[in-house]
Amino acid sequence: MADDFRYRQLADQLRQQIEQGVLRVGERLPSVRQLSRERGISVTTAFRAYYDLEARGLIVARPQSGYYVQSAGSRPGPVPRTSQPRPMATPITISEAMRSLARGWSQPDLVDLAVAVPSLDLLPQAKLNKSLLTAVRQLPDSGLGYEATAGSPELRRQIARLSFNGGSRVSADEVVVTNGCLEAITLALRATTRPGDVVAVESPTYYGILQAMEGMGVRAYELPTDPQTGPELAALEQAIRKEAIRAVVLTPTFSNPSGYCMSDDRKAALVNLLARYDLPLIEDDIYGETYFGSVRPRTCHSFDTAGRVLLCSSVSKTLAPGYRVGWVLAGRYQEAVIRAQLMQTISPATITQAAIADFLRIGRFDLHLRKLRAALQKHMLTYLDAILTSFPDGTTVSRPNGGFVLWVELPEGYSAAAMLARAVDAGITFYPGHLFTTQPQYAACLRIAYGHPPTVAYLDGLKQLGRLWQQT
Amino acid sequence: MADDFRYRQLADQLRQQIEQGVLRVGERLPSVRQLSRERGISVTTAFRAYYDLEARGLIVARPQSGYYVQSAGSRPGPVPRTSQPRPMATPITISEAMRSLARGWSQPDLVDLAVAVPSLDLLPQAKLNKSLLTAVRQLPDSGLGYEATAGSPELRRQIARLSFNGGSRVSADEVVVTNGCLEAITLALRATTRPGDVVAVESPTYYGILQAMEGMGVRAYELPTDPQTGPELAALEQAIRKEAIRAVVLTPTFSNPSGYCMSDDRKAALVNLLARYDLPLIEDDIYGETYFGSVRPRTCHSFDTAGRVLLCSSVSKTLAPGYRVGWVLAGRYQEAVIRAQLMQTISPATITQAAIADFLRIGRFDLHLRKLRAALQKHMLTYLDAILTSFPDGTTVSRPNGGFVLWVELPEGYSAAAMLARAVDAGITFYPGHLFTTQPQYAACLRIAYGHPPTVAYLDGLKQLGRLWQQT
Repeated sequence: MADDFRYRQLADQLRQQIEQGVLRVGERLPSVRQLSRERGISVTTAFRAYYDLEARGLIVARPQSGYYVQSAGSRPGPVPRTSQPRPMATPITISEAMRSLARGWSQPDLVDLAVAVPSLDLLPQAKLNKSLLTAVRQLPDSGLGYEATAGSPELRRQIARLSFNGGSRVSADEVVVTNGCLEAITLALRATTRPGDVVAVESPTYYGILQAMEGMGVRAYELPTDPQTGPELAALEQAIRKEAIRAVVLTPTFSNPSGYCMSDDRKAALVNLLARYDLPLIEDDIYGETYFGSVRPRTCHSFDTAGRVLLCSSVSKTLAPGYRVGWVLAGRYQEAVIRAQLMQTISPATITQAAIADFLRIGRFDLHLRKLRAALQKHMLTYLDAILTSFPDGTTVSRPNGGFVLWVELPEGYSAAAMLARAVDAGITFYPGHLFTTQPQYAACLRIAYGHPPTVAYLDGLKQLGRLWQQT
Repeated sequence: MADDFRYRQLADQLRQQIEQGVLRVGERLPSVRQLSRERGISVTTAFRAYYDLEARGLIVARPQSGYYVQSAGSRPGPVPRTSQPRPMATPITISEAMRSLARGWSQPDLVDLAVAVPSLDLLPQAKLNKSLLTAVRQLPDSGLGYEATAGSPELRRQIARLSFNGGSRVSADEVVVTNGCLEAITLALRATTRPGDVVAVESPTYYGILQAMEGMGVRAYELPTDPQTGPELAALEQAIRKEAIRAVVLTPTFSNPSGYCMSDDRKAALVNLLARYDLPLIEDDIYGETYFGSVRPRTCHSFDTAGRVLLCSSVSKTLAPGYRVGWVLAGRYQEAVIRAQLMQTISPATITQAAIADFLRIGRFDLHLRKLRAALQKHMLTYLDAILTSFPDGTTVSRPNGGFVLWVELPEGYSAAAMLARAVDAGITFYPGHLFTTQPQYAACLRIAYGHPPTVAYLDGLKQLGRLWQQT
């Protein structure tokens, strides 16, 4: 009982410090051992205090790093509900809206909450430059000549190794290098669908995927999707039975924008379901390595034994967006993917492939990823807190365990599209919810990317967004 | 009369020297001034002798360089006739044949007469490396971040400047940078056509263009094409009247494979014809800078006043295939092209764009091109001679005034496809004629690329091809 009292007392003290801003969002708490020494309590008591605060959503554990303040006392609100798109195939016409949207965003000092990329200071610039110079020196032609269409042999080997982290066992021969993840998805669509086909997607779904699908001329069938657990498999099966679904495109690990990560069980169930109907899954795994937990989530691809899953990824979210190095593990569709690439871009740039191969080969990637994940989690927590404290009451926000984005749902009646114009005038950008769907929905939703560190300017930007909403 | 006699005598002497191999193919003849001094004749007489030899096809003038031996006395034979494809739209299914063809070609010491790229020793490797390092140093993010979808502003400015050579006057804003010329053509097709449309092309036509069209799901209408003057405009107009032609794709300047360069008059007439029917022209100008004559041929784009010509090009044939830097001047279709790129690859690699921009900015391109053109012309003449002397009687060969390829037509009954298997066994590759069409034609034709210097190995390879034909 004395122990019970002690841990509650300690937890209360820490809670007050957090609420009063003595301990600030993103700050690290003392280690359990340190706390036990300082307060003269047992390690168990210290642990129990932290467990209590964690359960309240005030602090969060980060593997091999310790506990961090997650929220300034405003207990995290509920997350957005499961989406409810209409069960029907819809033609896609999003690219025009996207283009006209981004046209005006050329001011230099934008608070960019729109684009989901890591800010430059999260990237290993000096070490990548070193790898680039090594590549120029070591390639007999300095990278002037064409690379093979399937990609640099050494890079393919490194990607095969990296895929092992997500549970996939592939040889270098099974990797096709692409111009970033979007080309990987485009090629996967070309290999598996024809214009007019229906493709099932999560809802909301990443606008880039919708654009790739628009380019391919396929229609979208949006699935009810929970921002914690992912798309409803029963709804998918109904769709397959009702419509001639030809392929499924999902981002099962840290989906963009809704943030869910499907459990291993659900990933396996999805792969089994599609096997029963002999349908391909295009798995966007671009965020797979940016997990905040202690374990790299497995990919759907790792559960697939029949080559039906086309895993698409890239280094654009972890190393260098501008290098345009992505890949696809295309299973039984590999030949079709390579043929599609010969119709489109022939091969990605030789020199950037060689630079990434060198960077991966010398083993710098692991250390870099550990730093990147910790930074992103801190960004996420700080952004989350700023949104919860400054946005209108009733706002719900996703709780991603990886990736780059928060999905924010305001109470009904708010219009993210209308807000955006005023936000841009104030030098702030984000992507409004209607870009993530082919249906008239998500008008009160928006996506906030947290790739940029929560500097004063960015936190002020979020607060200002909050004020602009309140004035609506 | 004495002068007449003298120049004929001199021409005869030189002709004998050439036929006996004293003067060898590709060698430079003495300058007119030097010849006049050495032989004690007037400069006019020396000129007339050279004119005579040039008229016989034995020597050729190269601007600002002098006269070179073109043929070892076997007077250049006739060129292939105007093609006669059937006047009909045909679906395209070439990509599978292309893939299965190139699969076996992985031996290291291949005599590669197939791929139409400059050999490494024709490229300014050291200077491009320098530009690459400058780019890494000067870009604030070393090229890690995304470039704008339309491309690097400085590169777009340089491309606008370069386009002036072909007679086009565009601003940097009118340039869209792409992943090489093939992506430019793919995007141009996406911007102007829909699956199922009919697109008019020259015949034979480059297999890469056919693959891009296959990827787009359009059908090809092949036009009768003369290897000297280009496609027949009357046939094009008939096709437009007969079929719902939606776009035209041509390589009007040093076409690949047939080698023609349309005259300025015919280019202007083509642009006017398409204007009357309000049809877009996708102009592949990738070889435009590799002219052997004294003047850069004008582009069709330069005659266009209504933004209907989409000019596609790249540095893949002149600087660095592996950099994957191309572009399109898309006129009224610019927005559609950018939208198509957002559906496909987002943008080309940042660092290679910056390197090419630097190389173009510091003015190294002109000097490099002068050397490249002279080398290519010499290659062409030497290859031409080797083919004419070793291939079966009745073989005709194109006479390109630029570009990288010869189009060779053997007498009826020969099969290039059948020959290829035996050639590959002997370590020699080329592309057989049937890859350049959607119809059952060009079985006795092949394309020989002369990007590689005519080394002993390459000349032996050509001779061996000749022997293999003779044995057929």
